[in-house]
Amino acid sequence: MAAEAWVTLATNDSYAVGALVLAHSLKSANTTRPLVVMITDQVSTAMRDRLGVVSCLVQEVNVMDSHDSAHLALLARPELGITFTKLHCWALTAFSKCVFLDADTLVIQNCDELFEREEFSAAADAGWPDCFNSGVFVFRPSLETYSKLLSFAVSEGSFDGGDQGLLNSYFADWATKDISRRLPFIYNMTASGSYSYRPAYKQFGKNVRIVHFIGSPKPWQASEASAFQRPVPGDHIGLWWSIFVSHVLPCLSSEMTG
Amino acid sequence: MAAEAWVTLATNDSYAVGALVLAHSLKSANTTRPLVVMITDQVSTAMRDRLGVVSCLVQEVNVMDSHDSAHLALLARPELGITFTKLHCWALTAFSKCVFLDADTLVIQNCDELFEREEFSAAADAGWPDCFNSGVFVFRPSLETYSKLLSFAVSEGSFDGGDQGLLNSYFADWATKDISRRLPFIYNMTASGSYSYRPAYKQFGKNVRIVHFIGSPKPWQASEASAFQRPVPGDHIGLWWSIFVSHVLPCLSSEMTG
Ligand SMILES: O=c1ccn([C@@H]2O[C@H](COP(=O)(O)OP(=O)(O)O)[C@@H](O)[C@H]2O)c(=O)[nH]1
Ligand SMILES: O=c1ccn([C@@H]2O[C@H](COP(=O)(O)OP(=O)(O)O)[C@@H](O)[C@H]2O)c(=O)[nH]1
Ligand SMILES: [Mn+2]
Ligand SMILES: [Mn+2]
Repeated sequence: MAAEAWVTLATNDSYAVGALVLAHSLKSANTTRPLVVMITDQVSTAMRDRLGVVSCLVQEVNVMDSHDSAHLALLARPELGITFTKLHCWALTAFSKCVFLDADTLVIQNCDELFEREEFSAAADAGWPDCFNSGVFVFRPSLETYSKLLSFAVSEGSFDGGDQGLLNSYFADWATKDISRRLPFIYNMTASGSYSYRPAYKQFGKNVRIVHFIGSPKPWQASEASAFQRPVPGDHIGLWWSIFVSHVLPCLSSEMTG
Repeated sequence: MAAEAWVTLATNDSYAVGALVLAHSLKSANTTRPLVVMITDQVSTAMRDRLGVVSCLVQEVNVMDSHDSAHLALLARPELGITFTKLHCWALTAFSKCVFLDADTLVIQNCDELFEREEFSAAADAGWPDCFNSGVFVFRPSLETYSKLLSFAVSEGSFDGGDQGLLNSYFADWATKDISRRLPFIYNMTASGSYSYRPAYKQFGKNVRIVHFIGSPKPWQASEASAFQRPVPGDHIGLWWSIFVSHVLPCLSSEMTG
C-alpha cells in the first residue's frame, strides 16, 4: 500500500496545542495512518519536541502570507493569510494520498475510509454550501499541483483572502462535477451544524466523525473553567478539553503555554 | 411540450400576500410557465379573487396537519405542521413537471432552466448541508408518489415535524446519488447566505436567482417603514417591498390585510 497520512498545520504554539489534541483524538480513534504536522519557525523548540512525540513527522515549512489584506479585512480574520501555508501540503510527496485536517478539528470516530476518496474531496461550507470548507480535504501530494496552486494564488488571489477562497476557485468544479468528491457533512461538522437546524443534528449527529471549531474562540482559548466540567454527550468542546487535560496539559512546559 | 408549472402554497391571507409578490416577481422575470397557487379554506374570498387575477390557477386543497407537536416544538415553529399540505402538490397531475416555491421566496432572475431538472431536485440547507431545503424543489406530480408520501408520513413521521424533515427522509439519497439533483445554492439562497460567508456572497451573489426569506419575521411582517426605503443592490427585503408597494398593496382590500 502506498504511503498515506493525515496532515495538519500549526504556525505557532497556540495552534500547536490544537494539533496535539487532534493527534490524540486520531490515536483514540485507532487510525492506521500517521499524522504529519507542518510547522513554521515561530513554533518553540519545546513544542516541536512534544509534537515529535505524538506525531510521526514534524515538517518545517515557510510562512507564505497572502498579503491580500483588503479581502482579509472583509472576513475580519486577518490571521487567515497565514493559511496559504497550507498549500505546502501538496509538497509532501513522500505520501501518495493525504487528508488535511485543520488544527482546530477533532476526530471523534475512526474515519480512515476518507483515504478511499480522491483529490479533491471536501465537505460543504455551511455558510455558502456551493463552496467547500477547507478544514478537511482529501488530496494527492504533487509538485505539479503545488506549483500550479502557487501560480494561481499569485495571479488570481483569493476571494476571501485565505486558503478556502483560493482552493474553491482552483477546484471550481467541486460543486457540480462528481458527487463522490463531496464529503458528507459528518466529516467536517462545523459548530453551527448543531444549532442552525437542530432536528437534523438530533437525527444525524450521532454519525458525526470530525468536529471543526471554526471561528473564534478556539477551544484552547475558551475559559479554563470548562476543563473541570465532565463532557456530556454531544458536548464537543468538553470532549476537546478532556483530551487536553488528560493527554496534553501534563506534558506542556510553561515555555509552550506562553 | 408537456404542461409545466410553478406551484406555491398559502393557507391564510398572510402567506397569500407572499404568494402575490412571488407571482409578480415571476412575471417580472418573464417566465414562460404559469403559477399554481394551492390554498385552503382559511383564505378569504377577496384574496382568492385577487390570486386568481395574478396566477393561472387557484387550487383549493385540504389542510393536513402533521399532529407531531413534539418534533415541532423542537423547531419552535408549531405553524410548520401545516406545510404537510405541501404534499398535495404531487396531486397536480394536470402538469408533468413542476417547481415548488415557498410563498416566502422571491424570483430575482429568470430561472426557467429549473424545468430541465428531474425529480427530486433541491438545494442544500445551509443549516445542515446534507439535507436539502424544501422551499424550492423540482418534482413530477404523480398520484402514486403522492400516496406513497402520505403513507410514509403516517408511518415514519417527520424528524423536524414539517415537510422538510419528511421529504428529506423520503428522498434520502438526494445527498449522495446524483449530483444533477443538487440545485446550486443560487436557486434557494436563504438570508443567512449573505452574511455567514460574506466573501462567497460577494463573489457569487450576483448569480442569485431565488431568495428565500426563511424563519421569522417574513417580509410582509417587517416594519412598514421599509416600504418607503428605496432598495439598494443586494437588498432583497427592499426588493420584496418595492414589488409589494407597486403591484400588490394597491389591489388589497382591507378585508385581506386583517
Ligand atoms: O495563525 C494561524 C492560523 C491558522 N493556522 C492553521 O490554519 C488552519 C485554518 O485556520 P483556522 O482554523 O483558524 O480558520 P477557521 O477554520 O476558523 O476558518 C488552522 O486550523 C491551523 O491549522 C495556523 O497554523 N496558524
Ligand atoms: O401558516 C402557514 C405556514 C406555511 N405555509 C406555506 O408553507 C411554506 C413553508 O413555510 P415557511 O416558509 O414559513 O417555513 P420556512 O421557510 O421559514 O422554514 C410557506 O412559504 C407557505 O408556502 C402556509 O401557507 N401557511
Ligand atoms: Mn479551522
Ligand atoms: Mn419558506
